[in-house]
Amino acid sequence: MARALIIGCGAVATVAIKKCCTCSEVFSEICIASRHRENCEKLAQELRPNTKTVITTAAVDADKAENVSALIREYKPDLVMNIALPYQDLAIMDACLECGVNYMDTANYEPENIDDPEWRKVYDKRCKEKGFSAYFDYSWQWAYKEKFEKAGLTALLGSGFDPGVSQAYCAYALKHQFDTIEEIDILDCNGGDHGYKFATNFNPEINLREVSAPGSYWDTDENGKGHWVEIPAMSIKREYNFAQVGKKDMYLLHHEEIESLAQNIPGIKRIRFFMTFGQSYLDHMRCLEDVGMLSTQPIKFQGQDIVPIQFLKALLPDPASLGPRTVGKTNIGCIFKGKKDGKDKTYYLYNVCDHQECYKELGSQAIAYTTGVPAMCGAMMVLTGKWNKPGVHTVEEFDPDPFMEALTKYGLPWNEDFNPVLVD
Amino acid sequence: MARALIIGCGAVATVAIKKCCTCSEVFSEICIASRHRENCEKLAQELRPNTKTVITTAAVDADKAENVSALIREYKPDLVMNIALPYQDLAIMDACLECGVNYMDTANYEPENIDDPEWRKVYDKRCKEKGFSAYFDYSWQWAYKEKFEKAGLTALLGSGFDPGVSQAYCAYALKHQFDTIEEIDILDCNGGDHGYKFATNFNPEINLREVSAPGSYWDTDENGKGHWVEIPAMSIKREYNFAQVGKKDMYLLHHEEIESLAQNIPGIKRIRFFMTFGQSYLDHMRCLEDVGMLSTQPIKFQGQDIVPIQFLKALLPDPASLGPRTVGKTNIGCIFKGKKDGKDKTYYLYNVCDHQECYKELGSQAIAYTTGVPAMCGAMMVLTGKWNKPGVHTVEEFDPDPFMEALTKYGLPWNEDFNPVLVD
Repeated sequence: MARALIIGCGAVATVAIKKCCTCSEVFSEICIASRHRENCEKLAQELRPNTKTVITTAAVDADKAENVSALIREYKPDLVMNIALPYQDLAIMDACLECGVNYMDTANYEPENIDDPEWRKVYDKRCKEKGFSAYFDYSWQWAYKEKFEKAGLTALLGSGFDPGVSQAYCAYALKHQFDTIEEIDILDCNGGDHGYKFATNFNPEINLREVSAPGSYWDTDENGKGHWVEIPAMSIKREYNFAQVGKKDMYLLHHEEIESLAQNIPGIKRIRFFMTFGQSYLDHMRCLEDVGMLSTQPIKFQGQDIVPIQFLKALLPDPASLGPRTVGKTNIGCIFKGKKDGKDKTYYLYNVCDHQECYKELGSQAIAYTTGVPAMCGAMMVLTGKWNKPGVHTVEEFDPDPFMEALTKYGLPWNEDFNPVLVD
Repeated sequence: MARALIIGCGAVATVAIKKCCTCSEVFSEICIASRHRENCEKLAQELRPNTKTVITTAAVDADKAENVSALIREYKPDLVMNIALPYQDLAIMDACLECGVNYMDTANYEPENIDDPEWRKVYDKRCKEKGFSAYFDYSWQWAYKEKFEKAGLTALLGSGFDPGVSQAYCAYALKHQFDTIEEIDILDCNGGDHGYKFATNFNPEINLREVSAPGSYWDTDENGKGHWVEIPAMSIKREYNFAQVGKKDMYLLHHEEIESLAQNIPGIKRIRFFMTFGQSYLDHMRCLEDVGMLSTQPIKFQGQDIVPIQFLKALLPDPASLGPRTVGKTNIGCIFKGKKDGKDKTYYLYNVCDHQECYKELGSQAIAYTTGVPAMCGAMMVLTGKWNKPGVHTVEEFDPDPFMEALTKYGLPWNEDFNPVLVD
């Protein structure tokens, strides 16, 4: 019996909200809040007839902590679930601290304006000190640790699939399968096919950033000192034969959970993250970039300022239209290499999720499904007291067992392989 | 001592006009006419200080025969050189007939509006009867044969490089090197590099039409009956090692001179046309087409109708800017297979043209240069009486010797190879 304030009403939030409504014994009351209340209300109206969860809605501009605080004071939730944009993480954390409420999110903070000179100063320093150049990192939210501890409040960071479930898999492997883990490869494969020659699941701008940013991984030198290794974008490519999906090309990317895992897995030597991209997708991105269609700089055309990537977005299929036509599966998981009882051991924990089944169940394809379900399960862990630990924590810092049990119950069961093919 | 009315003031016309001005003994007076007289006047002002040719200018809308007739009556030329759009061929031929003046052009008629039902009816019938589906063919202009014959006027069709020089090469080969020619492969290679990842020499719409139209070639069945063979766009690909350029991929396309050569080369069994396209160029065209950027259908964006391909044009480098930066060479010619004195023989006639040298000489790269020079040389043949033959004729119907001599003199000398590598 608890009350959650859910900020966000996009594709991922919609999955999480729908799942909350199937578990009214925990989520007895929820408030759906976003910039556009009408979207929240539309969803609420769809859900109310079939759930015992009492659903209310609100408008909130989560860019400003005081707006969020006002809503919290009015609604008095036990937990704020931030399933909005990562730009708003800090404002919502501030509001939670001010009002004494637990917090959770699905992706770590990054600034909306990366040209802000104040932010830039800190960023440049971190790039130099840490050795990776992604625009997001944990430092901004880890800076809240002491405040949350003192307030006796829990902040759960990154409870999606990756970050999120990927880290629970690490905690699970360490708890049940290994004495020490030396190497982790996180493999994120989307084997879905929407039948279009080119379309993007998200904003093409975000897709572009993903493939044009340098990759990086965690490695350890001969003296046992861990450090980041940064590589040019898309320069490490491997082929992997994914269970229930087949062979796919995958590329080494930077990913946020590497940063926390490097701190929280004792004795870890290497952590890498790979994501699949089809050659055709990459070719289209490159050609569009070559002709300037991915530019965010407006050009004058027919007397108007037109931003090429926005015009492209208008030409491409609406991402929301991909759901009903996407077939195939995702396969996301972690391959571990380590020691058990003095012997070398390898182990692969992964989830396979079918786009069409997700769509039939919740009207969303697997990309949103695999992020929304862990968001709801993480919230459930906090609300039921299973993951209550004052401070600011990532998923691997908690007991993975009840979380993974919930994941299985709510649609994301895991598979294991005790003799996996390793990534070289 | 003759007077030519030149309709057109684009890149090709500019080359032809500049070359006319180097040969004032033939082109003693020229009138440059186009829709925008100011462009003609600008060019005239640039040329007048350095030529004995008397240059005047005029505005003309060549879509309408009566406008052209009025200008002809006023200027009283000995020849009308149509170096404008192929849409206007028939209107200008009508005007020449009405006023009793010789005519020439560089490309055969095609309609501006291919949805016009009257034109479509004739087109559909021709597609069925002849077996190729290009929007242009000689039938429209050949229909004027009797009228030009009766009027004692010469109409010279297609005096560019290909069509044009390619056909003169055929006539030359037949006159000097073969008793019979059985196979002709016309090879058009542009080995130029403008240094951009993607740019088009012309309107991208015309480029697109070129690579998306079915290819076709002339072939002969076992009974010796010639016929067209149509193939899917870009489905026949060969690699060829071009002299002074190197290895390039080339694709079989439909091309207009195949139609007249099939009639005018006795005993011919096969005629094919190949053009080089780089893989990167084709990849970009395909990717842009996939996302809808090559569409000519407007979409609503920011409250305006925007035609994607026109927006793309605005993003791409201005074709006029390519001239100074394009390096490399073109190599265009014909490979012949036939009999001489009862023996099998092969022979390759080709021209190599350097982009930078063309640019230094006339401020145009080789693409415009190789079309503009033969236009001027063809006009010279008609004006000097060397190619005077009442009726409507293509280049191979005339004596190639004086034309090829002029080509050499004015910048397009030929090379020959008596043991060429054949295209399989």
